[in-house]
Amino acid sequence: MKKPHWVIEKERAKRAAAAETVWLFGLHAVRDALENPAREKLRLVLTRNAADRLGDAVAASGIEAEIVDARRFDVPLDPSSVHQGAALEAKPLDWGGLDEVLARPGPGILVLLDRVSDPHNVGAVLRSAEVFGARAVIGVARHSAPETGALAKAASGALERQPYLRLRNLADTMERLRDEGWRLLALAGEGETSIGAALAQGETEKIALVMGAEGPGLRERTRELCDTLVRIEAAGSFGSLNVSNAAAVALYAARAAQGDAPA
Amino acid sequence: MKKPHWVIEKERAKRAAAAETVWLFGLHAVRDALENPAREKLRLVLTRNAADRLGDAVAASGIEAEIVDARRFDVPLDPSSVHQGAALEAKPLDWGGLDEVLARPGPGILVLLDRVSDPHNVGAVLRSAEVFGARAVIGVARHSAPETGALAKAASGALERQPYLRLRNLADTMERLRDEGWRLLALAGEGETSIGAALAQGETEKIALVMGAEGPGLRERTRELCDTLVRIEAAGSFGSLNVSNAAAVALYAARAAQGDAPA
Repeated sequence: MKKPHWVIEKERAKRAAAAETVWLFGLHAVRDALENPAREKLRLVLTRNAADRLGDAVAASGIEAEIVDARRFDVPLDPSSVHQGAALEAKPLDWGGLDEVLARPGPGILVLLDRVSDPHNVGAVLRSAEVFGARAVIGVARHSAPETGALAKAASGALERQPYLRLRNLADTMERLRDEGWRLLALAGEGETSIGAALAQGETEKIALVMGAEGPGLRERTRELCDTLVRIEAAGSFGSLNVSNAAAVALYAARAAQGDAPA
Repeated sequence: MKKPHWVIEKERAKRAAAAETVWLFGLHAVRDALENPAREKLRLVLTRNAADRLGDAVAASGIEAEIVDARRFDVPLDPSSVHQGAALEAKPLDWGGLDEVLARPGPGILVLLDRVSDPHNVGAVLRSAEVFGARAVIGVARHSAPETGALAKAASGALERQPYLRLRNLADTMERLRDEGWRLLALAGEGETSIGAALAQGETEKIALVMGAEGPGLRERTRELCDTLVRIEAAGSFGSLNVSNAAAVALYAARAAQGDAPA
């Protein structure tokens, strides 16, 4: 029996993952990647229409496009991907390690994600992190969303510009941050201090915002390593923010506290 | 030639829309709707497994479930919908009109959406609006996301609890709000005042936050009717917040300004 299309695509995606390449798709994401000189580009597949719209970016990038018919757009993407006739196979970006992030002088904000694996959430966090000038978003290597086309799309260009590190061990990272004078604020619904009050009271030069995934939340060890559990003040007892909205609010509050207030 | 499955499903969804019913799906969304006495329930389709997990909610709701085999889950949902074996056909909720919203005494926050049609964005805005206690989210009847299963899922339960009005004319609504003492703050990247500064300076008793869709932004008429164009202070010139993240930040700032500061 012939394998269904989606099985073939899934297998291809798996092979792509093993080969450590990523397929970016959509006009916006492909353009941003083409315009990023740090992005190692391997294969560019475009429809004629997409090639016309990306003309200058393609020319500047130096990679030659394979022009294909829209009906034979044969790249290993999830069938639900809105690719708009544009796909780019590329290497994930190398943002270096924690040393580079911490070497920068001056005030800073970091976002630490404790096993947040949903690519749409992580992409949206990268987007907000860029807007509010976070130094880096840091996840756990084996339990965070890898760089994928879906993540790139949710990040709306920020994937090319916002450092996103996936480190082996979050606890080690947190200990090192603490040793180097970073204040670790964990967002948790049961936090006893509001994030505004916590930021108003203590040191705000170097702030690491620590967030868990929806559902499981923060692991016990992650909680223990934080200086303070903070909550985002809610009006009632119903509902909770999604992780990317909580990150946006926390980033806004942290940035305001670092001296741009009233932001 | 036999119509492909997705065409049949699309046609069914269209008929459902014409009949003014909505199919909610997923264990979480279906449970929240079953537990909402204001929700008019028409048809409940569950797998045996889902029926076991929703047992108490089904019993309390009074509607009888049709138990189906997981392989014959024959309801008009988009094929990409993660229904988890649970779907409920229901009437959209009736939140009444602007009169009811404005009749409530005391301070308030409203969110006005100028043609924001993406159901995931609107759902996420509803979720944040509930958390920060907004009185209502208001959209334009013919250009905003209707109540759908995808919206309900993004709203994560808030659809059942957070008033969401779709009014015929946004300009009329804005004029009425102004007449009744609401301060209209429009979020726009080119705003000359930061939202924090705007809230620190003026009246904060009744605040309407006005937001446009990504891409088109606010219509000219919407801009004109606002008191102030405000921006969310960014660190650099790259990037922008997605609409739901911008809404979360604006709601947080507005709520903090209404007296819970530091929030």
